[in-house]
Amino acid sequence: VVRPGSTAGVADLVAAARRHKVALVAQGGNTGLVGGGVPHMGEVVLSLRRLDDVGPVDRLAGQVTVGAGVRLETLQAHAAAAGLAFGVDLAARGSATVGGMVATNAGGSHVVRYGSMRSQVVGVEAVLGTGQVVSRLGGLVKDNTGYDLAQLLCGSEGTLGIVTLVRLALVPAPRDLVVGLLAVRSLAETIELASELRWALPGVRALELMTGESLRPVAEHLADPLPVTADAEAYLLVEADGGSTSVPRRADPAEDLIAAVASTVPGTAVVLDSAVATAEHERARLWRYREAHSEVAVSLARERSVIAHKLDVTLPTAGLARFCHDVVALAKERWPGSEMLLFGHVGDGNLHVNVIPPAGSAGEGIDAAVLELVMAQGGSISAEHGIGVAKKPWLERNRSVSEVDAMRAIKAALDPAGILNPHVLFGR
Amino acid sequence: VVRPGSTAGVADLVAAARRHKVALVAQGGNTGLVGGGVPHMGEVVLSLRRLDDVGPVDRLAGQVTVGAGVRLETLQAHAAAAGLAFGVDLAARGSATVGGMVATNAGGSHVVRYGSMRSQVVGVEAVLGTGQVVSRLGGLVKDNTGYDLAQLLCGSEGTLGIVTLVRLALVPAPRDLVVGLLAVRSLAETIELASELRWALPGVRALELMTGESLRPVAEHLADPLPVTADAEAYLLVEADGGSTSVPRRADPAEDLIAAVASTVPGTAVVLDSAVATAEHERARLWRYREAHSEVAVSLARERSVIAHKLDVTLPTAGLARFCHDVVALAKERWPGSEMLLFGHVGDGNLHVNVIPPAGSAGEGIDAAVLELVMAQGGSISAEHGIGVAKKPWLERNRSVSEVDAMRAIKAALDPAGILNPHVLFGR
Repeated sequence: VVRPGSTAGVADLVAAARRHKVALVAQGGNTGLVGGGVPHMGEVVLSLRRLDDVGPVDRLAGQVTVGAGVRLETLQAHAAAAGLAFGVDLAARGSATVGGMVATNAGGSHVVRYGSMRSQVVGVEAVLGTGQVVSRLGGLVKDNTGYDLAQLLCGSEGTLGIVTLVRLALVPAPRDLVVGLLAVRSLAETIELASELRWALPGVRALELMTGESLRPVAEHLADPLPVTADAEAYLLVEADGGSTSVPRRADPAEDLIAAVASTVPGTAVVLDSAVATAEHERARLWRYREAHSEVAVSLARERSVIAHKLDVTLPTAGLARFCHDVVALAKERWPGSEMLLFGHVGDGNLHVNVIPPAGSAGEGIDAAVLELVMAQGGSISAEHGIGVAKKPWLERNRSVSEVDAMRAIKAALDPAGILNPHVLFGR
Repeated sequence: VVRPGSTAGVADLVAAARRHKVALVAQGGNTGLVGGGVPHMGEVVLSLRRLDDVGPVDRLAGQVTVGAGVRLETLQAHAAAAGLAFGVDLAARGSATVGGMVATNAGGSHVVRYGSMRSQVVGVEAVLGTGQVVSRLGGLVKDNTGYDLAQLLCGSEGTLGIVTLVRLALVPAPRDLVVGLLAVRSLAETIELASELRWALPGVRALELMTGESLRPVAEHLADPLPVTADAEAYLLVEADGGSTSVPRRADPAEDLIAAVASTVPGTAVVLDSAVATAEHERARLWRYREAHSEVAVSLARERSVIAHKLDVTLPTAGLARFCHDVVALAKERWPGSEMLLFGHVGDGNLHVNVIPPAGSAGEGIDAAVLELVMAQGGSISAEHGIGVAKKPWLERNRSVSEVDAMRAIKAALDPAGILNPHVLFGR
């Protein structure tokens, strides 16, 4: 493990790696789930943790420059101290680093409002695989002077260059947050409701789907009975910003949310029940049902002495309801006794499919079966976490030959010696 | 000029061009200002106008797929008919095409709210310079499966591939629009006010700066006296969306705007005067002062029988006020008798510098002097229009050797035969 303390240090390391034909794997907070930041075949780990400088918030531009090793939580607190906010949030905020989030184009719960990490990146400083250092940190929002190298590095999983510094856009601090937990008659109607709330509710910033079969065991595990009926087919967690304004709004954000929901489903019984919270601890309680899904999946698996299969996929929104039904039916049929927690960022078409195999089963074939279904229905085999090594066998089936050829050509152009994370994506 | 009617037709043409070593220049609405879409050295023009299919609006996903040849105006009307909107707007909406807007990463007035064209692109179908067709039109918002080729094509000025179809994100239809024209005591305070309004005013979607020296001749030319004091150093045009909601908001958007302005400049005389409009024709009247700048520059030049020099640049926000003062001083000193219209999208740090030379002068050296100043102060020589051929001599001074080397490597990777728009950017 090498831990350089500056861009120059990273450049020296890349130069040495090129000379000696040694492969490097960049590593941030090590929170990835597909093995994109860990050595597999004797690579040297390039830890970016020491690049933890946090620049002053430029309130005039609404931007900040931070080192790749800065943790998300630190960035969030830094932005908040200046009265602003950072647009990406995710559960691993205490460990995930900005560099890793750029390399994987991290998503999370607020993509529906602010976009993914890609949308926050105004510029980067990076050492390319060619050994050259590129740096564009002036915070120029509009800068149509050739190819956008920063955007190309977003989501490239450390295979083209090592990002050392990032210029990030900030967003207005949220005010008057409101969270609603809606019990909905059917899954398909939940998806429609989520879509309509994007158009009807100002400031919507999270739209999280949970199936009833997923939420009920979570509520039971938390020993916190649901504040709404437990009998719904699906649930929608909605978070909205009542207005990022220093001017007090006259409308009550809770009323806004209820009115928006009512306006999208007029005169029907689509929404069976709802709970709305504005106080912080009440909002946190509603969020807890959603955020606990991942840990409950692990707990349920542990009780059965099995491993939970966790897949993170995107489907075209129009096919989301069908996929949910099909993937549940698939698991029931092929792995009887398995349990499924199905939830996700429905506003982005992004589902987390967590399958807990029956006791005594390794659930062999589950990942393949789910990803096959995703591909057959036009989806993406990796919504948020990237390809890494775990999904490498699937890449060339999920992307066309032309696309992978183009990626390989770009890889060869920017890392001709093949020293940057050579075993991920389409790598050896 | 060749006008293919399908992606396959474009692919055939690219294959033929590769075989015969003939260069192609893709052309959309031909509204660019830097010569990026016109032949310079005998290239064949590849017109994309026939690719004008407009797919159905997918309201569930908030997306639509359209051909590269679809005009912006058509797209906007199509989105509006489905109760949604498209996030990019610009004056050339009647001519500019989606393909050209992707190729140049078009900006416009609403970037501060929705981002540039890049932010609207969910996926593309394109013929690369290698002859291969890439297609990712499923509308997957989160899709971290390798390099984002669509994003790489955004702003690449037709040098890497020919975009034939585009999957675009739509935004909520604006409601209760309010426009304010604020006369501000000083230029620096105008820039600060614009910045603070981004944080204080929900739904701000345009922040347009005009200097007093720029706005006064425009108002005179329009024969429409300003509804606010004509003596201010600078003016800010603000447009905000009162809430993209189907639920009537209780707060009056005009009051919101005034309250937001008051909250950002408490107890001072920063804002000398203001006019606020909510009715469509009144909003249009205020916008007219801003939108007429470009045509008034041409008229003023014509009256003197000279050519207006129009430069489109971005500065770091922190250096914007200094640059404005310096560029005005520069013109006065070196081209006495010249007139300057200085305005732009201040929320993005983007300025349009229009210099009308004194009568009898070609204003030789004006472009160079302005761009030198931009570069010396850390700015971008092309905010919105790209490099084309007009700004080619400047590219390698505005971007580092490392950056241009990386761009050249990517160009060689995706267009190895060098047949796509070979004379723009860093081309021959």
